[in-house]
Amino acid sequence: MNADDNDDCAVYDFPGNLSLVIGMDFVRGPGFVLFQEHYLNYFDLGYYLVVANLSDIAAMGATPIGITTVIRYHESLTDEDFSQILQGIKAAAALYQTPIVGGDIGGYTETVLAATAFGITQHGKYLKRRGALPGDLLCLTGEIGLASTALVYFTKARKLGFLLAEEEEAILLRAWRRPVARIREGLVLTQLGVVHVCQDVSDGVKATIDQLAQASSVSFKIDEASLPIHPLTRKVATMLDVDPISVALSASVDFELMFTISPADLINVQRVFLLPGTALHVLGEAIPSSIPSYLLRNDGGKSSVPGVAWDQQVQNVADVILE
Amino acid sequence: MNADDNDDCAVYDFPGNLSLVIGMDFVRGPGFVLFQEHYLNYFDLGYYLVVANLSDIAAMGATPIGITTVIRYHESLTDEDFSQILQGIKAAAALYQTPIVGGDIGGYTETVLAATAFGITQHGKYLKRRGALPGDLLCLTGEIGLASTALVYFTKARKLGFLLAEEEEAILLRAWRRPVARIREGLVLTQLGVVHVCQDVSDGVKATIDQLAQASSVSFKIDEASLPIHPLTRKVATMLDVDPISVALSASVDFELMFTISPADLINVQRVFLLPGTALHVLGEAIPSSIPSYLLRNDGGKSSVPGVAWDQQVQNVADVILE
Repeated sequence: MNADDNDDCAVYDFPGNLSLVIGMDFVRGPGFVLFQEHYLNYFDLGYYLVVANLSDIAAMGATPIGITTVIRYHESLTDEDFSQILQGIKAAAALYQTPIVGGDIGGYTETVLAATAFGITQHGKYLKRRGALPGDLLCLTGEIGLASTALVYFTKARKLGFLLAEEEEAILLRAWRRPVARIREGLVLTQLGVVHVCQDVSDGVKATIDQLAQASSVSFKIDEASLPIHPLTRKVATMLDVDPISVALSASVDFELMFTISPADLINVQRVFLLPGTALHVLGEAIPSSIPSYLLRNDGGKSSVPGVAWDQQVQNVADVILE
Repeated sequence: MNADDNDDCAVYDFPGNLSLVIGMDFVRGPGFVLFQEHYLNYFDLGYYLVVANLSDIAAMGATPIGITTVIRYHESLTDEDFSQILQGIKAAAALYQTPIVGGDIGGYTETVLAATAFGITQHGKYLKRRGALPGDLLCLTGEIGLASTALVYFTKARKLGFLLAEEEEAILLRAWRRPVARIREGLVLTQLGVVHVCQDVSDGVKATIDQLAQASSVSFKIDEASLPIHPLTRKVATMLDVDPISVALSASVDFELMFTISPADLINVQRVFLLPGTALHVLGEAIPSSIPSYLLRNDGGKSSVPGVAWDQQVQNVADVILE
């Protein structure tokens, strides 16, 4: 085993230049606020379980080769509910061409969803969490904050009478119902061999920045102008008069990859990320750790990086964002 | 992926004659009746979690190379309880020389213990669940029924005033507190290359016989005289006037390996199982499936194989054994 304790996954180097990558994630599932408020169904939970686990493999830049699942059902779960979970698992696994290779099914005093995903790569080729250098560019594979925006909107704004259009609500819910594991992006980044550190942002962008900074003993300077914040996040933040940046950077299960590269490699990365369906955003750069990480506002002001990091004690991050 | 759906684990064949074996098990843990009645502690649950998962690797005849765990804690769990679970996990992993390579820790509405164990073997060398032939000898690596006897004794007999000596109680509890994964035995059987099918008996001997029979389309004839039933099982069964065979063959988390071999290979297997700490019991033989599996009693009578198979709906198998 040679992965850092810091990495999302375990890594085994086997003979024949083969490395095995393993990640294991439990998913709150029925504990999701949006599930409890009936915006998500059991199919969505099964789908989410697979994507959350594959995202760990994506963040290592590995090719997924299989997933095993634990499904324990509370006595209140109907056969139809259970079948919906299974169908969600199967649909996501099929979309990511990842066979379901076993698992554990049974009853328990609470419904439980967990999984382990496996991937392969070559010796030394997996993407690491430690090794960012001052001067590195901090990059991101897509927009962030739609999942946290969904929480703020459905559990707060909407209840106060603010209403989005149906299509807009669908976009927000899609972040939870059909999340995307950036497998292709991770593989492309591995191929390029230019990434210093990589992690998915499933704990939120602020939390990910803090974790990457700590692991590599650097800080990050973030440019407000570069943040890929969806117009809906701004719209919902405005409804409640909160900072859209705080909503976007707070705990949000976006599953985008955040990584650093040397500025000299940017052109090579940009060239690949012209692929349809991919995106590349340069959020800022790594700076020496003597200066704390900060956000450079559009007006020239500086502040600490806003947002609420994921905290498993917090049931609904929207509660904290709106405090 | 080339393991049968029937196998406990998934198997991947990699280049270089390397096969990876994976098993994933959830453990009821705090739901164990003996935990709820304070005969087991949190250390025991952590220990059990590791052994239950390694037993799947043992049943494949593979060498364990790592384990990942999910530990989700209910809010009622104290820091000390949590630390005890971790210590139990670490102790068992250390005893089996298996590194803990990652996992998932957090809160949930119920305490959750699950794990995934990894092992390696060579292409085609793992022990399978399908392929027993009529005439095969049915073998077992140790005594069975102490775990179910513990349930019958502590949750039934003892409450009725029947008392064992302290040392006897300790023996019964050890089946739950310090279970044994038959890793060495599995490896030795793989080396010999004589095993047709293999499975651990963690669902109980009756259940395992039924599963092996179904997978291979055979039946089994079991000799009462050959059953390795511990004297304590007979003693406790006598207290309550139930059939000791039924207690011993019922759902019991014994983690012994049950396997079949050709009669011609018995001498080779016996030779190896003279190793200290190992045991070999020949319970009977595979017969054509045209005859249902049966138990040949010492008095010459025949009956169906007694015992209650594991059923996740049943909280305490002792309830059913005593029905």
